[in-house]
Amino acid sequence: MHQVVERIANKDIRALARAITLVENDHEDKLQIMQDAYSIKKNGMFVGLTGSPGAGKSSLVNRLISHIRAEGKTVAVIAVDPTSPFSGGALLGDRVRMNEHFTDDGVYIRSMATRGSLGGLSRATKDALRLCDAYGFDVVMVETVGVGQSELDIMKIVDTTAVVLTPNSGDVLQIFKAGIMEIADLFVINKADLHGVGKLRAMLRELVHITSTDDHETAIVKTITTENQGIDELWEKIKEHHHYLYRTEAGKTRRHEQYQLEVLELMREEIWRDLHQYVRNNPVFNKETGDPYRQASYWYEKWKREGR
Amino acid sequence: MHQVVERIANKDIRALARAITLVENDHEDKLQIMQDAYSIKKNGMFVGLTGSPGAGKSSLVNRLISHIRAEGKTVAVIAVDPTSPFSGGALLGDRVRMNEHFTDDGVYIRSMATRGSLGGLSRATKDALRLCDAYGFDVVMVETVGVGQSELDIMKIVDTTAVVLTPNSGDVLQIFKAGIMEIADLFVINKADLHGVGKLRAMLRELVHITSTDDHETAIVKTITTENQGIDELWEKIKEHHHYLYRTEAGKTRRHEQYQLEVLELMREEIWRDLHQYVRNNPVFNKETGDPYRQASYWYEKWKREGR
Repeated sequence: MHQVVERIANKDIRALARAITLVENDHEDKLQIMQDAYSIKKNGMFVGLTGSPGAGKSSLVNRLISHIRAEGKTVAVIAVDPTSPFSGGALLGDRVRMNEHFTDDGVYIRSMATRGSLGGLSRATKDALRLCDAYGFDVVMVETVGVGQSELDIMKIVDTTAVVLTPNSGDVLQIFKAGIMEIADLFVINKADLHGVGKLRAMLRELVHITSTDDHETAIVKTITTENQGIDELWEKIKEHHHYLYRTEAGKTRRHEQYQLEVLELMREEIWRDLHQYVRNNPVFNKETGDPYRQASYWYEKWKREGR
Repeated sequence: MHQVVERIANKDIRALARAITLVENDHEDKLQIMQDAYSIKKNGMFVGLTGSPGAGKSSLVNRLISHIRAEGKTVAVIAVDPTSPFSGGALLGDRVRMNEHFTDDGVYIRSMATRGSLGGLSRATKDALRLCDAYGFDVVMVETVGVGQSELDIMKIVDTTAVVLTPNSGDVLQIFKAGIMEIADLFVINKADLHGVGKLRAMLRELVHITSTDDHETAIVKTITTENQGIDELWEKIKEHHHYLYRTEAGKTRRHEQYQLEVLELMREEIWRDLHQYVRNNPVFNKETGDPYRQASYWYEKWKREGR
């Protein structure tokens, strides 16, 4: 077993941080680390939170952490932040949010802001979640800012995705536009003391009614983070959804589809890595001009013949 | 030459629409169509416009169309809209905007809203732009809503990307967060009659100052679409940037980098297509469980041995 995973198995939190960094940076041991980590997986609950900036996700996560801790469970949070082109790091750092839970060994918070990793931010984040699970956190959460395609991708690895909205934010249109319905396992109306909460709830109910199956209806939970209201109900609904996934046939099917998607994605990454290496330092490739469609086919065929 | 491309070469606008649809739907002739289209490319100006919803991009594009037409040039616009999961089509249709330029043969407007294409929306849009160029439009524009990763990707094919902002929209932080600086060749402050324009301009100037190179400084243009103000200056700045790209060494280098990125992207799409086909209907693959990392390596090796 890889040394860093052995240390993770021995509850060395620094090793967890180190392993995530190795994975973020596409270290050559990455595949070994992830295979070894998988061999000690604990099957923690994987929970995703997403929603547009300003929806109050960070505060909500903080409240959830406290609630989960009060149940005696440990929790890791991976916060996905887009990277600043200047700092090269996360804009909203873990430091901002660490404060409240800083002295609690049962809480681990980490920002991800990878750019340029071959597998992309989405893949690195999924690996980080799996590493947290290998360490043994009961709940592994991922929080994403905004609703881009790669952020939707991240949610394909979690058990339960909560989409956080606020009244009058115009987010409902975004839900239609950005394919959110497909990933939303439950909706959170945060800042539910604001005007317009009734209208948003009615619209969501209609949405949910259209898309729900017989087995399962997407829950809608109202929260007011500042007053710690609704957090208990939110946590209950997350647990209910988890139960649905692991105790029903429909849930089992969905989990297997997620699994297959992940295998395909990992295969694609391996091929991409090999191919990239093959052409990257090739002086002929680097001088090519002309039809990119023909060039792509030519080099792909060439790689398949020679590049292994 | 593929029949649809022959018809495009003969200025059949319906053939252009048909070819874009074939490409959107991953038709089996896609590669042939794109190679043939490339063989009759006209090297039109590729211009991208992006910015958050509500920045007034559509009105700006309408004004630009009129301005470009007044110069006697023809123009095609690809509008990228996220898809509704219910309608399966574009939310903001071309129909809304067709009105003004409907009877003008020198203008072609098309919405793209592909989901599930193997190459993704980004790839399909790039192909659509190349098809418009093959038809012979002098200017080929792409307009994207929002600033997700795949929308940033689209801009990697255009010559000049204009990022549209409005005063007091809080967009400047987004610019830092979402990697916009890297794709912005010029900034447009639209709705420049609103309060806060001075502050936004000052902030942009600082940004631009930090990131500009010796050869080239990112332009900032103010426009008021409702009064048709600043459109002429915007068009001049777009032409200036185009001149920089095609007449300087730095511009040449950048164009070659874009070219190589595109070849790599096309290679990745081919891989994904092959791989998908190989495993999709494989009953053994479909029953697999266990470590996804090991499974991916196993199937990758198997594919390399057998899957070609």
